[in-house]
Amino acid sequence: MNSPAVEHSFPALQWKTLQRRSIGNFRLFDAEWIKRQHPINGDTAEFLVLHTPVWVNVIPITTAGTVVMVRQYRHGIDQVTLEFPGGVAAEAEDPAAAAMRECQEETGYCGSPSTLHLLGIQRPNPAFMSTRCLSYVWYDCQLLAAPQWDAHEVLEVVEMSPEDVDRHIATGQIQHSIILAAWTLFRLHALPVEHGHGGSDG
Amino acid sequence: MNSPAVEHSFPALQWKTLQRRSIGNFRLFDAEWIKRQHPINGDTAEFLVLHTPVWVNVIPITTAGTVVMVRQYRHGIDQVTLEFPGGVAAEAEDPAAAAMRECQEETGYCGSPSTLHLLGIQRPNPAFMSTRCLSYVWYDCQLLAAPQWDAHEVLEVVEMSPEDVDRHIATGQIQHSIILAAWTLFRLHALPVEHGHGGSDG
Repeated sequence: MNSPAVEHSFPALQWKTLQRRSIGNFRLFDAEWIKRQHPINGDTAEFLVLHTPVWVNVIPITTAGTVVMVRQYRHGIDQVTLEFPGGVAAEAEDPAAAAMRECQEETGYCGSPSTLHLLGIQRPNPAFMSTRCLSYVWYDCQLLAAPQWDAHEVLEVVEMSPEDVDRHIATGQIQHSIILAAWTLFRLHALPVEHGHGGSDG
Repeated sequence: MNSPAVEHSFPALQWKTLQRRSIGNFRLFDAEWIKRQHPINGDTAEFLVLHTPVWVNVIPITTAGTVVMVRQYRHGIDQVTLEFPGGVAAEAEDPAAAAMRECQEETGYCGSPSTLHLLGIQRPNPAFMSTRCLSYVWYDCQLLAAPQWDAHEVLEVVEMSPEDVDRHIATGQIQHSIILAAWTLFRLHALPVEHGHGGSDG
């Protein structure tokens, strides 16, 4: 897939950046106030923006056609969630390599690099985060090793059918927006695309 | 729809909260370090959590069957995005009322309160945000008034078919995770659900 991008330019909607000042690093992100000017009325204001490394997630599909997911505790909501494996790409790490690494570390499942496909790029919170999250599908995965969890990671690995994923979404058992978004990209992966810039390579 | 919830309890995955200290208010959220203890190995560590009011978004479907969307500039990515209308519920504001208000203010389109349906609850970033976002569909909407934008809001309202929304997702023209997630919920809205706790009321 060619890298999808928001291609259109809308100068009447686009603010102009005047100035930036750092608030500091908060481990998960660097925070910044950015002073910008409105394109039409000339108003200026400061807006908070959080910067993070690239995030990745991957939908592992086993040779049997099941989907591999992980249950993990999430500090933001103080609850256990059901998610696809994923994480943060290390500095200078290729996002596809990061996706395969995270999948292997969190679940023990992996496939061949040739069966990993980019589904699309997500923007988890464009209102105030510059973050980019690349979503992949990884076909023909198999459980080849024990998971290797980071400190603070204790996960539960579960396999289910794609129909079960749909049902878990419909019943509210899966609520994580980035996971729901990855599932949308997966479900549309085979959709015929009119434009020349990708949308499917699988 | 009954309120969907992550129902299962996983005590072996669930950290225990020991202590909380505020970092301050950053306009969009309150930030906090929360000290927690791991359920198995007893490790303790501090984790960053951002708290926001309830967010809402709504997929307005017109009497002609088209979907109403807005283009708007987003400071986090310094680009114009294509989104469903939505925003923040005011303190003590009913989320359904907030969804209808945001739709009317941003697009000028509205329907009857009886044609608004909750699609589900999203967690935009459970790793470090406590945020809850309620996603709705609003059927039988019509353009009844001019939009009433907030200061700093200049939007472009566009109508398209559901198939065009699919295509814009597949080509990467829509990348906002919360919007993609809302679309997943919308596409699954009519899915038969085995459990007794909802998933469709439309």
